[in-house]
Amino acid sequence: MLLIGGSCEQQQEGMEAFQEYHQVEHARPFCKYSARPSSIQRIPVFVEIAVRMSIYGRPGVSYLDFPANMLNSSVSDDSINWKSPCPDPPLICALTEDIRKALDLLTTAEKPLVIIGKGAAYARAETEIFMFLTSTGFPFLPTPMGKGVVPDNHQLCVSPARSKVLKESDVILLLGARLNWILHFGLPPRFNPNVKIIQVDICMEELGTNVQPSVALAADIKVVVNQLNTELKRHAGNFFFDQNRNWWSDIHVAINKNKSQVKLLCADQSLPMNYYCAFSQISGLLEGHDTIVVSEGANTMDIGRSMLQSLLPRQRLDAGSFGTMGVGPGFAIAAAMICKSDPEVKHKRIICVEGDSAIGFSAMELETACRYQLPIIFVVFNNNGIYSGLDAESWNSIPEAELALVAPPTALAPNIRYDKVMEAFGGRGYLVNTPEELHQTFKAALNDDTKSSLINILIHPLATRRPQQYSWLTSSKM
Amino acid sequence: MLLIGGSCEQQQEGMEAFQEYHQVEHARPFCKYSARPSSIQRIPVFVEIAVRMSIYGRPGVSYLDFPANMLNSSVSDDSINWKSPCPDPPLICALTEDIRKALDLLTTAEKPLVIIGKGAAYARAETEIFMFLTSTGFPFLPTPMGKGVVPDNHQLCVSPARSKVLKESDVILLLGARLNWILHFGLPPRFNPNVKIIQVDICMEELGTNVQPSVALAADIKVVVNQLNTELKRHAGNFFFDQNRNWWSDIHVAINKNKSQVKLLCADQSLPMNYYCAFSQISGLLEGHDTIVVSEGANTMDIGRSMLQSLLPRQRLDAGSFGTMGVGPGFAIAAAMICKSDPEVKHKRIICVEGDSAIGFSAMELETACRYQLPIIFVVFNNNGIYSGLDAESWNSIPEAELALVAPPTALAPNIRYDKVMEAFGGRGYLVNTPEELHQTFKAALNDDTKSSLINILIHPLATRRPQQYSWLTSSKM
Amino acid sequence: MLLIGGSCEQQQEGMEAFQEYHQVEHARPFCKYSARPSSIQRIPVFVEIAVRMSIYGRPGVSYLDFPANMLNSSVSDDSINWKSPCPDPPLICALTEDIRKALDLLTTAEKPLVIIGKGAAYARAETEIFMFLTSTGFPFLPTPMGKGVVPDNHQLCVSPARSKVLKESDVILLLGARLNWILHFGLPPRFNPNVKIIQVDICMEELGTNVQPSVALAADIKVVVNQLNTELKRHAGNFFFDQNRNWWSDIHVAINKNKSQVKLLCADQSLPMNYYCAFSQISGLLEGHDTIVVSEGANTMDIGRSMLQSLLPRQRLDAGSFGTMGVGPGFAIAAAMICKSDPEVKHKRIICVEGDSAIGFSAMELETACRYQLPIIFVVFNNNGIYSGLDAESWNSIPEAELALVAPPTALAPNIRYDKVMEAFGGRGYLVNTPEELHQTFKAALNDDTKSSLINILIHPLATRRPQQYSWLTSSKM
Amino acid sequence: MLLIGGSCEQQQEGMEAFQEYHQVEHARPFCKYSARPSSIQRIPVFVEIAVRMSIYGRPGVSYLDFPANMLNSSVSDDSINWKSPCPDPPLICALTEDIRKALDLLTTAEKPLVIIGKGAAYARAETEIFMFLTSTGFPFLPTPMGKGVVPDNHQLCVSPARSKVLKESDVILLLGARLNWILHFGLPPRFNPNVKIIQVDICMEELGTNVQPSVALAADIKVVVNQLNTELKRHAGNFFFDQNRNWWSDIHVAINKNKSQVKLLCADQSLPMNYYCAFSQISGLLEGHDTIVVSEGANTMDIGRSMLQSLLPRQRLDAGSFGTMGVGPGFAIAAAMICKSDPEVKHKRIICVEGDSAIGFSAMELETACRYQLPIIFVVFNNNGIYSGLDAESWNSIPEAELALVAPPTALAPNIRYDKVMEAFGGRGYLVNTPEELHQTFKAALNDDTKSSLINILIHPLATRRPQQYSWLTSSKM
Repeated sequence: MLLIGGSCEQQQEGMEAFQEYHQVEHARPFCKYSARPSSIQRIPVFVEIAVRMSIYGRPGVSYLDFPANMLNSSVSDDSINWKSPCPDPPLICALTEDIRKALDLLTTAEKPLVIIGKGAAYARAETEIFMFLTSTGFPFLPTPMGKGVVPDNHQLCVSPARSKVLKESDVILLLGARLNWILHFGLPPRFNPNVKIIQVDICMEELGTNVQPSVALAADIKVVVNQLNTELKRHAGNFFFDQNRNWWSDIHVAINKNKSQVKLLCADQSLPMNYYCAFSQISGLLEGHDTIVVSEGANTMDIGRSMLQSLLPRQRLDAGSFGTMGVGPGFAIAAAMICKSDPEVKHKRIICVEGDSAIGFSAMELETACRYQLPIIFVVFNNNGIYSGLDAESWNSIPEAELALVAPPTALAPNIRYDKVMEAFGGRGYLVNTPEELHQTFKAALNDDTKSSLINILIHPLATRRPQQYSWLTSSKM
Repeated sequence: MLLIGGSCEQQQEGMEAFQEYHQVEHARPFCKYSARPSSIQRIPVFVEIAVRMSIYGRPGVSYLDFPANMLNSSVSDDSINWKSPCPDPPLICALTEDIRKALDLLTTAEKPLVIIGKGAAYARAETEIFMFLTSTGFPFLPTPMGKGVVPDNHQLCVSPARSKVLKESDVILLLGARLNWILHFGLPPRFNPNVKIIQVDICMEELGTNVQPSVALAADIKVVVNQLNTELKRHAGNFFFDQNRNWWSDIHVAINKNKSQVKLLCADQSLPMNYYCAFSQISGLLEGHDTIVVSEGANTMDIGRSMLQSLLPRQRLDAGSFGTMGVGPGFAIAAAMICKSDPEVKHKRIICVEGDSAIGFSAMELETACRYQLPIIFVVFNNNGIYSGLDAESWNSIPEAELALVAPPTALAPNIRYDKVMEAFGGRGYLVNTPEELHQTFKAALNDDTKSSLINILIHPLATRRPQQYSWLTSSKM
Repeated sequence: MLLIGGSCEQQQEGMEAFQEYHQVEHARPFCKYSARPSSIQRIPVFVEIAVRMSIYGRPGVSYLDFPANMLNSSVSDDSINWKSPCPDPPLICALTEDIRKALDLLTTAEKPLVIIGKGAAYARAETEIFMFLTSTGFPFLPTPMGKGVVPDNHQLCVSPARSKVLKESDVILLLGARLNWILHFGLPPRFNPNVKIIQVDICMEELGTNVQPSVALAADIKVVVNQLNTELKRHAGNFFFDQNRNWWSDIHVAINKNKSQVKLLCADQSLPMNYYCAFSQISGLLEGHDTIVVSEGANTMDIGRSMLQSLLPRQRLDAGSFGTMGVGPGFAIAAAMICKSDPEVKHKRIICVEGDSAIGFSAMELETACRYQLPIIFVVFNNNGIYSGLDAESWNSIPEAELALVAPPTALAPNIRYDKVMEAFGGRGYLVNTPEELHQTFKAALNDDTKSSLINILIHPLATRRPQQYSWLTSSKM
Repeated sequence: MLLIGGSCEQQQEGMEAFQEYHQVEHARPFCKYSARPSSIQRIPVFVEIAVRMSIYGRPGVSYLDFPANMLNSSVSDDSINWKSPCPDPPLICALTEDIRKALDLLTTAEKPLVIIGKGAAYARAETEIFMFLTSTGFPFLPTPMGKGVVPDNHQLCVSPARSKVLKESDVILLLGARLNWILHFGLPPRFNPNVKIIQVDICMEELGTNVQPSVALAADIKVVVNQLNTELKRHAGNFFFDQNRNWWSDIHVAINKNKSQVKLLCADQSLPMNYYCAFSQISGLLEGHDTIVVSEGANTMDIGRSMLQSLLPRQRLDAGSFGTMGVGPGFAIAAAMICKSDPEVKHKRIICVEGDSAIGFSAMELETACRYQLPIIFVVFNNNGIYSGLDAESWNSIPEAELALVAPPTALAPNIRYDKVMEAFGGRGYLVNTPEELHQTFKAALNDDTKSSLINILIHPLATRRPQQYSWLTSSKM
């Protein structure tokens, strides 16, 4: 959603009459309103609209653009058109009969699955969903930004068996996640062609995108899961999908296989490190710390998503639905500014995990982090030439000095010292080659809440994800 | 809402994967997707999206634009990507506690008012609203396209006291109407500055536009009014806002005053006729007929709105929120085509009431109506020079032959024979000067369901609306 | 070119500093400037820019959009920022060496051709081009709106051999015409693949569109043809491409063949008339009259273009490069208003020749023509169902009453009385069936300069163009 | 100018017919064409159009956007629609009579001035302009990117008296410069209200922007100055505007005053350095070197423009008409890539002079420069907090550690080590505090053509431009 400032109201009998902004905004979101002389007094009106558009309905971004002449003007205080802040969005719920239909499907499923999307996080539905899962025993899978609504380390979390559960589930409860490319459009071959989907979304127009749901619930997720809990207790009080079910047994086989593969990769301590080895050092140290993890990159973001557990909701900021690179440092700085100023969250640490292609988009923001003395820990997974297009043999046979000349324009120079860039801005920079060095420097960074740090981790240039079932996923962003 | 055809999905493993259209559409509604070779097979997918966007959430228009090369192509039947039609929109309801807050406000109000907007009509909430009004005794006011949800001739309808009730009400239940210019933005001087608004809208972002509601209910209106009825019975079963209340007495004074004024105007049979006199002839004949009234114009639309009663919902099509002129004949033709092809509604007659400025925008559509033998009755209120800017004295002193040369470019030529235009296309045209002629010709038109008719009514060039409380309303569209 | 009003200049030290409008306009032609309070005083500045953009460089349309609040404001006379009108565009000429290269190509060509485009008409280069053609003897071909720069009846005009000369010419002098779809992009199979083009255009960016010219002359056409004449006299004084050349003999064969075909069609007086028969009546009567011909339609425009000769430049207004339908009546009214107010041209008569599909787009403008008492002669070639998609047999076998129901939605109703529409607005309407009736009514209309007339000519529904070499042209607009 | 790829042509009889791209592009420059299956074969067609649009008429940028599916496709070589490159733009000249009018004005002027814009540089008119100036003796003033067409150190260059000559000149020959904000719109109080302007521009629509010229010459500047030289010799062979004229005497007074002020500022060696002192070190070392200077910033760009002389045309790249920040490193890299690959220019050194606000926009491009081993010399004028809004007293009284917290968000952190950022990428970084250090490090950088260097010069935070006649210029970009 987008709102652009200025005003275009009609003047009426000596009063300021307000234009029907909302409607115009929907019809022509990129329209630039003409600023009228009186607009400056009405900035609070626009701010209220911007906030409302941002938090009501499907949450999203508002953009207020103030023309230069407005920024340089001043008005008397008493001419300002003050507006009280918009209240929390009203809550909406589903019809009880639709809730029952959903429960009927779920309680009779052979292979049920709950997918927790970022909509569930935005709705602050963590308590209700936790209750629902623990009282039903259903397996759940979080999307990238749905992670932490229920802790990743919960025994019902089936992330390590993601491909399997998506492909085989016969009934899916979709809580605030979209069936877009991140979820393979909900379609075969990645989904069961006969899957029945119970779709819950606050945006009614979203209900049916790509797959027509068996039950469509247009409602606030917190409210609707509460309704599910109530009806469940009332009508299916004894239901429990226990771990002896075949579905659970199958899932556990897949989880264990995945875990073994990952364990092997973590244990491989050859240098330069592979991604799993490096991430395992970090994840070990993060235990017991309350952190907000920001992440962007390709392999870095994909592997990090599974290697760094989220135990609390809304604590992971990802490149999102459009996979836009360059957003990481900005996200990290915004999160750190909030933590700095709000005593309730000032104990949280911000970890910004970047691929070396991603960091290149906005590394100058490291200066901003230093200037405001924000104790963000930036971690760069530096594989010296991602997307170089060179195979292992060529890579090893070419002298380093010539690598830049041989590599394609999309490849990065080897051995860029991102740590020294951080030092140039007054923060702490670390170059890390071994698991031990990574352990020590990350620990040091965690213990220092006075300055920004950057840990530049040398990763093997040819390291990739563990093999995937679908070849196109091995190197894709997901 | 707007959706433009073509596709921009990514190709994935030999299958057609569907792009996340909805999201893209919200972000960039005017974006033109690139058509890919396979798009033609996927036309059903786009049609489903277009229909869904049009009926889910706030109802609106979808637009599918097929590139020329797609229109000229053909594909084998079995390659087509069929899609089942999207089901009716899911219903959403409000929290019971919010329903109670609304009832608390309404049942303790001194001067309550229910405003019925076109959202209530779209939601097909007529039965629920009728029950609510008759069991509470609240006065109600319909918006232009909310007319008929409850019949205009119901004793609780306070349209003739519109200005008064808007200005004085202390609690307003707003059912699917927007606080835009049509409702004076909900602001003083047209509204009570202390009015408490209970806003019901299916579009959550709309809740708070221009006025912050005391209770905001994001929900389907049919469902929410049903909730109101249930809670009312449960918690305030004895409540009734009877006609002895001061509020009702005051309203009746205003209604009677208005009715007397209108009666006088109707009785004034001097020639050329005034608007009220002409409309009273038509409204008399419409009694007992099931009609769809389409209307556009300035005075014609404004006065006609009060003079032509709507007794059924969704049977009045107006120039709408943007006041766009030229839409009337197209609306009338669309309505007539549906009535022609659907036995359930084929008894309905379409009346298209046009100002003589409005008819000029798309009078060539009369040819379309004739070509398809649609028995629409077009009525032109022809005041020979609306907006002429001439005062009575000048008007009378200038010879007719010179009038066109003296009048400003926005004025129309006197005595344009719209009836003869209709005859030129094969329909029936009538020129009408007196109330009697109008009565006879309109009766004849009603009795003829074989052809389009047009009645060209000569109206006094200086006739206007009855005097309004706010001067700017006397000649404005509302 | 498009210019939208308002202003966005920076304020500087108490003076009005002018924004660099032109640059902004080129970069963002649809941008809406924010109106500043002072903008109303600067309307003359915008008007000057709009006029300049319209007549300098490649001529085109400017659009000034004044926001409503500007239209309703007033300012004191002495605060207005008057601006003197922009002078005539400066003239530019080509390098003499390029002129010589062009002449070398032309004087050594076996099959030379001069194409006269509307750019030549805009440049008012008629005298220079006439001199050039008569002193060289080259054949010439006008484009639709280049007609009349040299009279169509000049012996060097080869329009009747259009397809042949385009396909065979080895050197073409292109004077202000674009190689777009109207000229088949300058490419085979419609053009000789080895043709050498000497392109003259005032718009430098246009030089090379679709075909790379052998000589490119970015210059004012009046000036450059003058240069050609001067250099020709100086260096090739004896050159003359006489009628004994093979090229001329071949062309004459083609011309004569075409003329015989047309003569036959004109002589066919069976009813309803064919296009050629009807046009021959009109063209006969137009001889000796100074007229401006406006035309739009498909067959009507195509056949009329060859049947109605243009003897003077800038006296034919066509649907133009984009083939937009609905422009005819507006063009005719604009031309008539100018002729009415300017004594120098008030003897000219405006003839607006419309297909029956075309007139449907804006027939209500007939009312405007009548209101302003403009003696325009509208002619409708009414073939009762153009694009009906029916073959002759079906057409004849279907009863007229059912035709509208059988015909596709794009077909028009039979026997629409456009003449009666004109009468409804106060003009003179004629329905014409035979050549004799057409002769008499058109003569009557020409003799009446007090009112608008419309002649509704019944054309055989299956009449088309004479057969074309390329099948796609038989019914296409060109 | 903007061109977006894809195609939207109509298909015609088995051939690929080309759409009239140019016209469409002018009308709707941001339009995205739909890519058709055959478009990939036609990429050369689009490239030719893009190049032509970029170099014909007013030179500018073209943008070709290839959809992803096109980038990943392949076609057989012989299906490609090759297109020969577009030739150099055709040259256009002015009418001889207009040339004479221009000379009449110039030779009778009391206070003539020649302004050399970047259009003169693009037209490669340096020889012709040099001849014109030396044979007439007129003073000349280059615009920022017109610098070097005639060397800045030529005795006729009056840049140090810029404000004076703009304000007093009575006749100005404007060669390819626009009267936009950079030239104060050509209006009082910065220009003589009675100045007569002879405007030469290849873009006809530009003639008259803001000021109506006395003589308007739409022509190629190289050609038109050649015409001026020819006509001057023919008709005013004895004319010479010698240094004894009052105008020259006045100018010299102004120049000398300016030079004294600058000299004083250069001589002020207090630390941190001021801009003039630092620039004088660099300019001294650049003598005798063939360099391309790229510059952006506020004071850095403004002062650098006068302190770094341009002796050759097209060797200064500035932030340009829109003053866009962030362009410097990209410009420098592009210039260095060309110099690296073309033996004719490989001796040239690229100097990129950046303000510390400007470098922040795209400092990550330093990595690109290092990766390609481009010997660019980046110079950062680091005043530790430009736009800090603090006055001298506050600045000095605040401890450095707290400065970042006190300063507004637009201020930069003090003592950012841009030199260390360069080192982090493998280039050479220098921190410079004194004039001597600057001298030595810049000399070292000039002598090293193997690597990128960055010199981080500490500038006094409160240093500004020398005082200007118009207060708003003292700190503005120009």
